[in-house]
Amino acid sequence: MSERIRGILSPVVTPFGPDGSVDLDRFVRHCRWLQANNVGLAFLGTNSEANSLGPDERLEMMDALLDAGLDPKAMMPGTGACDLPTAVRLSRKAARAGCAGVLTLPPFYYKGVSDEGLFRFFSELVEQVGEASLRVYLYHIPPVAQVGISLDLIERLLDRYPGNIAGMKDSSGDWNTTQAVLERFRDRGFDVFPGSEVFLLKGLRHGGAGCISATANVNPAAIRRVFDEWQSAQADQLQQGLDEIRGVFQRYPMIPALKAAIAHWSGDAQWRRVRPPLVELSDAQQAELIAGLQAAGFSMPGLT
Amino acid sequence: MSERIRGILSPVVTPFGPDGSVDLDRFVRHCRWLQANNVGLAFLGTNSEANSLGPDERLEMMDALLDAGLDPKAMMPGTGACDLPTAVRLSRKAARAGCAGVLTLPPFYYKGVSDEGLFRFFSELVEQVGEASLRVYLYHIPPVAQVGISLDLIERLLDRYPGNIAGMKDSSGDWNTTQAVLERFRDRGFDVFPGSEVFLLKGLRHGGAGCISATANVNPAAIRRVFDEWQSAQADQLQQGLDEIRGVFQRYPMIPALKAAIAHWSGDAQWRRVRPPLVELSDAQQAELIAGLQAAGFSMPGLT
Repeated sequence: MSERIRGILSPVVTPFGPDGSVDLDRFVRHCRWLQANNVGLAFLGTNSEANSLGPDERLEMMDALLDAGLDPKAMMPGTGACDLPTAVRLSRKAARAGCAGVLTLPPFYYKGVSDEGLFRFFSELVEQVGEASLRVYLYHIPPVAQVGISLDLIERLLDRYPGNIAGMKDSSGDWNTTQAVLERFRDRGFDVFPGSEVFLLKGLRHGGAGCISATANVNPAAIRRVFDEWQSAQADQLQQGLDEIRGVFQRYPMIPALKAAIAHWSGDAQWRRVRPPLVELSDAQQAELIAGLQAAGFSMPGLT
Repeated sequence: MSERIRGILSPVVTPFGPDGSVDLDRFVRHCRWLQANNVGLAFLGTNSEANSLGPDERLEMMDALLDAGLDPKAMMPGTGACDLPTAVRLSRKAARAGCAGVLTLPPFYYKGVSDEGLFRFFSELVEQVGEASLRVYLYHIPPVAQVGISLDLIERLLDRYPGNIAGMKDSSGDWNTTQAVLERFRDRGFDVFPGSEVFLLKGLRHGGAGCISATANVNPAAIRRVFDEWQSAQADQLQQGLDEIRGVFQRYPMIPALKAAIAHWSGDAQWRRVRPPLVELSDAQQAELIAGLQAAGFSMPGLT
């Protein structure tokens, strides 16, 4: 088994052109900037508006990064879908391209489904993809998907597919959940990435693998520094700096706020666009966000 | 404007073959039986496991019915998706094929989205489909989708697209909601279909257009009879009969239960299959369901 991905990954926001289509050039450019800041690419995630993209668009974005020569070993594309055919198609493509892993939502249309049903979904996914190199990171995000990943489900999947079930992104927002998963599975080659950098240092101290966080789109270097220096004397202070910046973003709807910051620091207003059902920040909200970030000493060096 | 569809529609359950693929032959056969019972085809809905099907599978099912010569004027396929490209692709196909309408979920991944965002989604859908013949039935099913359709959203869409926004399936399960929509919009050419036959008679008495109900898959003739005879002296008694049968099905997960009944009365065990994340009824549950239905005098005459 090849070495597993660790560190900080960004659920890369997706830029849209004037006609609403995906702007692949700006997408690749933003991914290069993230990689230059030592942040991996968990593109096609929740913050990427991936579920607002058609399956073909998602495949095209994967191709765009690969064609641009970005390193698949730093990629963990989101391949979840309510339907197995789409999840299989995207996951197979990623596995064959040599991606470090795939971040896969449970099917999220039906609510209150059983662990047995979810086990069958992920089993079919692994079986139908049929690639030994497939590394599935289970995506637990109950505040959005409503359908979550239980400890028992993880255990059953790990027992059956120890080589393919690689870890989890935990976007529960609840440290107790993260800690429970870490304690039960960290010694079984199951890598846990908290879904926010507010749990980065805490996670690393409990055997976590890093984090996959929205704000890694805008604050990658500082978040990465906590990963690199978590055992140093200044770790808590560095973490506090992350929390402050995150706190400013969290006053607004996250995805439009991330895009507003990128639009501002790149001087490229096109970045503000979101797809329905999301709505961009108003001009007033954007001005307030930028002022708040500037007051906290935030900027996005090197962004073009 | 052509005459609008009214009456009883069935969210047709989707049969799967041994390899898990859609069984188009059995699907067409079941649709023929439903049409023979004067029930329209709201295929690709929640009870069809449509969100567990890939976009290509959904298009193939539409083609299968059209190729088999079934009447598109009796069809209201589900065309909702979290992403606009898929919703547009399916809706355009249906409109061009002459379908009576399309039943369209709001995008259901992000929760707590604004009416402005949903308005943009449905506006883009109408604009991008670009067919005057498109009739959109908004699909309100908050217990599953979590994202609902507000009265203000309906009003705004009706004001902007009076020719295209045709009505709603209300699967709130809450009569007060249905009544509020009926009272506010029934005089504006907005047709309301309750999502369960338990509200059929009540709905018709308040200007409803019929119903679109899971159990129309198995009990079509009796449900249709209430629609045909709602002004007769025996209407309440007929409605009571529907409620009794529905009550038996509701003791079990609805979709597996519908399939179990079809499997039993067609003598075709293949019908029991569901796609993950759903799970079929156990043998014991199936036996109990069938016994309960038989005790209520239920059968499925003419089913093959």
